[in-house]
Formats: sequence, structure tokens, C-alpha cells
Amino acid sequence: MSSVVSDPAVLHEVAIELGERSYPILIGQGLLGNAATWQRVPAAAAAMIVSNTTVAPLYLERLAGALQGRFRQVHQVELPDGEVYKDWPTLNTIFDALLARGCDRKTVLFALGGGVVGDMTGFAAACYMRGVPFVQVPTTLLAQVDSSVGGKTAINHPLGKNMIGAFYQPVQVVCDLDTLASLPAREFSAGLAEAIKYGPIADMDFLDWIEGNLEALVRRDAAALAHAVRRSCEIKAAVVGHDERESGLRAILNFGHTFGHAIEAGLGYGQWLHGEAVGCGMVMAMQLSSALGLVDDALVDRFTRLVRVAGLPVQGPRLGADRYLELMRLDKKAEAGDIRFVVIESPGRAGMRAAPEPLVREVIERCTA
Amino acid sequence: MSSVVSDPAVLHEVAIELGERSYPILIGQGLLGNAATWQRVPAAAAAMIVSNTTVAPLYLERLAGALQGRFRQVHQVELPDGEVYKDWPTLNTIFDALLARGCDRKTVLFALGGGVVGDMTGFAAACYMRGVPFVQVPTTLLAQVDSSVGGKTAINHPLGKNMIGAFYQPVQVVCDLDTLASLPAREFSAGLAEAIKYGPIADMDFLDWIEGNLEALVRRDAAALAHAVRRSCEIKAAVVGHDERESGLRAILNFGHTFGHAIEAGLGYGQWLHGEAVGCGMVMAMQLSSALGLVDDALVDRFTRLVRVAGLPVQGPRLGADRYLELMRLDKKAEAGDIRFVVIESPGRAGMRAAPEPLVREVIERCTA
Repeated sequence: MSSVVSDPAVLHEVAIELGERSYPILIGQGLLGNAATWQRVPAAAAAMIVSNTTVAPLYLERLAGALQGRFRQVHQVELPDGEVYKDWPTLNTIFDALLARGCDRKTVLFALGGGVVGDMTGFAAACYMRGVPFVQVPTTLLAQVDSSVGGKTAINHPLGKNMIGAFYQPVQVVCDLDTLASLPAREFSAGLAEAIKYGPIADMDFLDWIEGNLEALVRRDAAALAHAVRRSCEIKAAVVGHDERESGLRAILNFGHTFGHAIEAGLGYGQWLHGEAVGCGMVMAMQLSSALGLVDDALVDRFTRLVRVAGLPVQGPRLGADRYLELMRLDKKAEAGDIRFVVIESPGRAGMRAAPEPLVREVIERCTA
Repeated sequence: MSSVVSDPAVLHEVAIELGERSYPILIGQGLLGNAATWQRVPAAAAAMIVSNTTVAPLYLERLAGALQGRFRQVHQVELPDGEVYKDWPTLNTIFDALLARGCDRKTVLFALGGGVVGDMTGFAAACYMRGVPFVQVPTTLLAQVDSSVGGKTAINHPLGKNMIGAFYQPVQVVCDLDTLASLPAREFSAGLAEAIKYGPIADMDFLDWIEGNLEALVRRDAAALAHAVRRSCEIKAAVVGHDERESGLRAILNFGHTFGHAIEAGLGYGQWLHGEAVGCGMVMAMQLSSALGLVDDALVDRFTRLVRVAGLPVQGPRLGADRYLELMRLDKKAEAGDIRFVVIESPGRAGMRAAPEPLVREVIERCTA
């Protein structure tokens, strides 16, 4: 894999406004290895970089070098790579490392990796000594456009994805676009799913832009990536700023995730990438919106085409409608067993709805193969 | 064991003021089995009572009956009894129960038991689906005067007590004094330790009152218990209201806990009760305050006598000064390896200080046998 190092340049800065929990997202090139990037992180005796066995060999040394000036000790822990390890025993290796090195409650954790590393490091930071500061350093497109922003942290439970977790905000997010150069195509597509998501729920102009710039994105053009990450973070920041703990509005960010989580759980975590399940789940949710008479077929077709061209599946696995329904009743948005779907109310606007079960079954039948 | 059921009467109500996280503490008799007690708890489809194998047979049915009117389903889970079970596998049995019963994120958890049940239920509530409401129903004196109030939740890690946890506030605390009738003498004494604590750190009049009413407390006189619980909660409420997340002032509530945690960890959790370790730890911290020239010998003697008469140990186990120091460096209040002690600055006022190591060693030698 290639490993680009550009001259340090912050191309965009997006602010997450959450009162005393506000923080900046820096988007740019050459950020990771530049000491100046970390000047706003709270001072402490020790830093702990949490990464995984895939990402650590590529970027850990560079980050650790840049942190030396700010922390007397820079520790590290490497997790095994993959969604299947997003569990308690792996989380506990972070606690083991922190305690073995005598890390106090000012220690700053750095999440260097994709969504799994970010979710686990964030949850470890939320729990260690009842809360230590942490920084997100997302190295995948999915983490840069979505999971590293907004403070959702979690691990999986055998009976459900992200069931054990916390809302816990990082003190800073650093999206170094250089790290996307090393991302395998399949993971890049998975990240595109979460960027595509923002169009139908919030900003059809952004959907137009992605359609027009997909080719530049896929060849990892820095300017195109910078815009996609920035606009995604801006939309997410606006939503999270209004509803940090998902009591209402924030749920729209889960467009495609109810079907998607059922796919992931039904196949066993790690079979499909999260972004792949979300891509397919969005197509299913769009079909449901159409079946509810909210959007027209032209939008469904256009959206399905974009998801396909982005390299994502548009047909779900054939688990059977009963199994889908059973899994979706475990969704965190469900209440008293009633599944609540994020649907597109009109292009660029999403809402939450229950849906008649026969309609949901019909959509599942139509969208699985 | 006896199991008193009094006519329902709220004797005192203490408010914890934390903005949108404010909540009431109800102190009284016959509260647990009275439906009116639970009218302010948020409505939801399901409640989950978490208790342990000792407390559940005494009070679970009574509580479950009173909750029937408010919740369509009242589930329950029983944990094994004891500090040694304050760990991840036991915590996970709560998650297993919640998921197996399809509990959604409006489900209200009820912690029915002592400090361990309260800490674990609170932490489970903090983490389940990233946060569900919970109610503290403390059935031990220690939990009523201290641990159920203020939102500290946690489990232990093999390398340290309460290392994994969260600040997470309950929506209500209900101290039913009737439950104290069934409390074994050793546990009652352990609870007295945390009540005695409030005197030297905040209110010498309360210390006088405890000295004068110890006999009434020990025979579980309801009026005496009501006052002791109320005054303890008032002092704790004032401290926590100023410093919810222990960035400063709140640390004074840990008077005796730095030495105490070392005793607990050094002997292995569960050998001494937490309150016993704190009782002895307070004597050691008082000796340290004297060695630092902050308080006179008369106060040390008076305080040591009260701790002894309350049925608590005043001599620590002989672990050796090196081992004490090693364990105390893992304390959450330590920073960059420097142990910080809560000391009595003057009668009724506490502060945080580092202390010269030779002085600390001297105190350990003097106070262990």
C-alpha cells in the first residue's frame, strides 16, 4: 500500500457546537505527523494511541513522533482488525494497557483507525476512571464522514450491534486525507455509503455533487475528498448540535441503518462491511418511502443507481422476511417492539415512521436475492 | 431476618440540583411497596429490577408489586452477592437479561440492594443502548448515606477498584428505612463509616450528633436513621451539586478512601467490607492530617474512638508500606504517579494534598498491625 505524506495543510475546519463539549474537526493533508495539529489537545503526562494491526504499521509511528513534544510518555495498544472484535474482551485490552502503564485520569486516548477503533477507543475513554479525554484520528472514509463525529461510542453484544456504549464527545477530530490513499477499494465504497446518505436526508445539492464527482472521489482526488468530508461533517455537525443524545432529529442519520443492522446481524458481523449493509439498507428504506407514497420511482431508481455505481450492494441477503423483522425489533430505535424506520419524507428531508408490516415484508421480498 | 412493613411515610425529601439532571431523594418508611412512591419515574413499557440473591428474597416481590401499575412488564435479574462479583461478567448478565427480553431504550432500571448492586445497575443503565433511566433503591445504610447519591457508577478491574465506570445520575433515589432492619450488624457498621465521614470534612455538628446518637442508630431507631440519612444526603448533595464530575471539591468525599482502597485491593476485594476499609482509612488519613500539623491529637483520638465504637477497624492490615504506596499510586486521584490525599485542613474542612513519602510511611507503620 502507498503511504502519502503531504505538506501539512488544514483545508477546512468544521466546528461541532455542543456548549462546553464543543470541538473542532480539522480536515486536510499531512496533518497526522505534524506537531502543530495537536497543539489544542489538553496537556497531560501520557498519551495512549489505540490502533489496529492493519493501520498501526502505516501511521502509528508518524503520529507517535508528532505527539512526543506534547506528552512525556506516548503509549500504544494494537487491537485485532475487524468488526468481529468490537467486543468486551478486546475493549478490555485497552483497559489492561492503561492500568498496566499506570495511566491517570488526565491521559489522552487517540483513536487511530476506522469506525471500529474509533467506537471502541471512545467507549474506553468514556469508561476509564469514569472518563478521560480522547481524540479521533479517523483513517477510513467512513470514519471521516460519519462515525468519528458526534460522540457515539459502543461495542457489540452477541444479541445486537452497538448495544453497549455511551454518548461521549472527543476533544478534537483530525481527518488526514492522506490516509485515504491506503484504503482498499471495498472499504472506500463502504465509506461512500455514509456520504451518499446525507443527500436524501438533508441536502439534495450534495447528492448532485457526489453524482458529478464520483470518478474524482474514487481516484482519491484530494480536493474532491476534502469537499466530501467537509460537507458530510457540516451536515452531521448541524444535526448533532441540535440533538446530541438522539432524542429526536438525530435519528435521521440512521437512514438505511435499520435494514442495514439486520443484514449485519443476520449474516454475522464482519461478513458485509457496515457501509455495504448501510448502502443496501438505504435502497430498502428508499423503496419503503416509495411504498408509503412519499417519494416517486424516479428518485428510487436514481438513488439505487448511485449506490450501485459507488460499488455497493443494492440487494440484501435472503434471510427471509421473518428473520429481518425479528432482527429489526431489536433495533435501538424500536419502542415496545414497534419498529420505527427512517424514511425520506421528500427529497432532502427525512423523518421517523412506523410502517404496516405487510408493506415492510413486500419491500424485503423485493430487495433481497 | 425481620422484614418490617410500616405505613408509607416520606419523612424527608432532599433535592440534588444538577440542572436537567436534578432528582429527588425520598427518605421514609414503607416506601418500597407503595405505588405512590414511583409516580415521578418516567413512564415506559418495561421496568427491570436488578437485585442480588440476598436482597431479592426480602424485598423484590414488594417492589415489583408496587411497579405493576406503572409498567406493563416488570422484569428482574438477580446478581450473585458481593464485591468480588462487581466485574464485567456479572454486569453482562444485566445486558443479557435486557436484550433477551427485548427491552427498549425507555426501559427503567431499578437498583434494589446495596452499593455493589447500585454501582453495577447504574453503570449498566449508563451503557445499555447508550443510556436508559435508572432509579436507586438502596437497602443498606452505606448505599443510603453515600453510594446511591451522586451518580458515580462503576465495576472493578483486576488492577483497580471502580476503574471502569461512568458519571450517570439516577432519576430518583428512594431510601426506605424499613430495609435497614434486616441489615447484619457488620454491614450496618460499614455504613456508619460513610456517615461519620461527613463530620470532619464538612459539619462537626453532625459528628457531635452521631456521637450522641450512636446507640439509637445501632438499635435502628427510625427517627435517628432518618436524620442520619437526611443529613448525609444533604451534605453529599451540596458537594455534588458544585462538582458533579469530581474536577475539584467532590474529591473530599473520598476522605479515607485512598488508604481504604489500598486495604481492599491489598487483601483482595471482599475480605474487608468497603465501609470497614474506609473506617480504617479515615483513621489513617486523620493521622496523616495530624502528622502534617493540620489537626491536633485530641481530634485524632476522639475520631479514632468513634470509629472503634461504631464497630469498625482502626488498624490496617500489615501489607507493608511499599505495597500500600504501590496500590495508592493507582488511585484515580493520583496524577502522574503522585498520590494525592484528602486531609482534614481544620475540623469540618477537607482539602487535597500530596504528602512527603517518609511521613506517609510513618503513618502506615503506626496504623497497621
